[in-house]
Amino acid sequence: MGFARGAVALKVDSEPYDFRARARESFGRQAAMRTIGAELTRVEQGTVEIELPFDAKLTQQHGLLHAGIISAALDAAGTYAAYSVIDPDASLLTIEFKVNLLSPGRGERFLFRGEVTKPGTTIIVSDGRAYAVKPDGPAKLIASMTGTMMVVRGREGIEG
Amino acid sequence: MGFARGAVALKVDSEPYDFRARARESFGRQAAMRTIGAELTRVEQGTVEIELPFDAKLTQQHGLLHAGIISAALDAAGTYAAYSVIDPDASLLTIEFKVNLLSPGRGERFLFRGEVTKPGTTIIVSDGRAYAVKPDGPAKLIASMTGTMMVVRGREGIEG
Amino acid sequence: MGFARGAVALKVDSEPYDFRARARESFGRQAAMRTIGAELTRVEQGTVEIELPFDAKLTQQHGLLHAGIISAALDAAGTYAAYSVIDPDASLLTIEFKVNLLSPGRGERFLFRGEVTKPGTTIIVSDGRAYAVKPDGPAKLIASMTGTMMVVRGREGIEG
Amino acid sequence: MGFARGAVALKVDSEPYDFRARARESFGRQAAMRTIGAELTRVEQGTVEIELPFDAKLTQQHGLLHAGIISAALDAAGTYAAYSVIDPDASLLTIEFKVNLLSPGRGERFLFRGEVTKPGTTIIVSDGRAYAVKPDGPAKLIASMTGTMMVVRGREGIEG
Repeated sequence: MGFARGAVALKVDSEPYDFRARARESFGRQAAMRTIGAELTRVEQGTVEIELPFDAKLTQQHGLLHAGIISAALDAAGTYAAYSVIDPDASLLTIEFKVNLLSPGRGERFLFRGEVTKPGTTIIVSDGRAYAVKPDGPAKLIASMTGTMMVVRGREGIEG
Repeated sequence: MGFARGAVALKVDSEPYDFRARARESFGRQAAMRTIGAELTRVEQGTVEIELPFDAKLTQQHGLLHAGIISAALDAAGTYAAYSVIDPDASLLTIEFKVNLLSPGRGERFLFRGEVTKPGTTIIVSDGRAYAVKPDGPAKLIASMTGTMMVVRGREGIEG
Repeated sequence: MGFARGAVALKVDSEPYDFRARARESFGRQAAMRTIGAELTRVEQGTVEIELPFDAKLTQQHGLLHAGIISAALDAAGTYAAYSVIDPDASLLTIEFKVNLLSPGRGERFLFRGEVTKPGTTIIVSDGRAYAVKPDGPAKLIASMTGTMMVVRGREGIEG
Repeated sequence: MGFARGAVALKVDSEPYDFRARARESFGRQAAMRTIGAELTRVEQGTVEIELPFDAKLTQQHGLLHAGIISAALDAAGTYAAYSVIDPDASLLTIEFKVNLLSPGRGERFLFRGEVTKPGTTIIVSDGRAYAVKPDGPAKLIASMTGTMMVVRGREGIEG
């Protein structure tokens, strides 16, 4: 028995829809992600990756990537991982999330991976990890996250 | 016996120093706060307030203030509350924080208050609350936070 | 504007029911609380207190009250605070909770207070604080908690 | 690049010591674990497993394993995973932990696995997962945890 990370049992939609297009379209409307320069670089069912180049405008007082920016990108990665496993007419609200900052946010490029740990009809839980990545050399784990989302249906103004 | 929120027993420095100036100076170096338009509007020993006007560039896909931006401002409020109770030669690293999103981030202006729940020589815990505020009318609680910080001394590159 | 802890706006039931009796009856069925010796000592709308005498059978390796026992009592306090504000035909499931251990669990008697921070029809958030209390002298804050609960209706086997 | 869960880079002690014996001895002094019937069934560097048979005395109001008991066992699993990677003269204090309850605690036997996500000289972060296990058939994930511990040295009364 192992930690089945990412190997969640996902409902196969009888009529599959393009969850990738939906995630990209919704992410494209997250102005906050544009403001920080984050890109949605991978969308699979239950797994999403976001990438972010370092930018001096995103730093805390020591010149490192701000914990709040790390959290914003991790929250988005966890949320879009959850988006990839819900019905096309449902949407999501983040209830809560927790971030552990594991190493300083030092690097030229960062990768944020979100994975669905527990799908559900009402509550979905995602886990995320943030890495400082280099063109050559190993990625360095800089943060981890657990987030809880609620699946919502038919709430005006919350459709995507 | 009551919940002594904010009424923490703070060490009175034998030689008081200007913790307000230090907090403002350090906050001023947080480029990420400038990028999102956050201002440090109040600094007391153990309590800090940050304010943020709504800006369309900070939204999630439904046009509300992004959970990650709320978290970034709450993290900063909790961190600077902790800064206000440490020695002038010490600095802080955020170990972890948890945010609960309680109501949609809808409003024209937001206030983030951080308070030290537990001061300490090594570990400091802060709690924070985020509100949507209006010129007239009650503030609406939109998020709560608990964050844990580590007091660091003499680490190169981490002096403020 | 202040931190309105505990002063949540609670719906006044048109037909009030005995939420105290319900909380006591449900708590009485929590065998785990009996096993650790916890008592429900106060029930108000939105606020609950649980008390626990120190017992050597509840300790961790250094002879202090085990963090897990502190968490179990805090979870119960937060959950029953939420019970006190829901409809009589609804029940609750804990989705998640986070505990900060602030001081060693040293003492002869412990008090756990749970308060509803955000009531809701689907999601309720409670905060809790644990204290080591003495017959004479101030209570010492030893832990804080935030917990998220989901209101459930009509699920077989989950009625109280 | 993958989620290197459990594959943490551990310092190889120049003089290896019996971390398994130490973990078992310390766990044996956790009276709370004895009270709930938990056993330490596996100790590797960076990974620990605890098992717990269902017992009616550990239930919440619906007859399921109490969230607080799940948390107590997960906290212990995360803590002893961290014990397995620290120096023999160091000890640990739990700073905080967060638990997500993913499925009802229904089953005859439960397994709690703790893994070190980030070792460190001052702060160690562990993740944990709880499963309902059956003699035949797949294990069911019922909870996940992230915990933060502080490495302490030379504090009287905290030696193991």
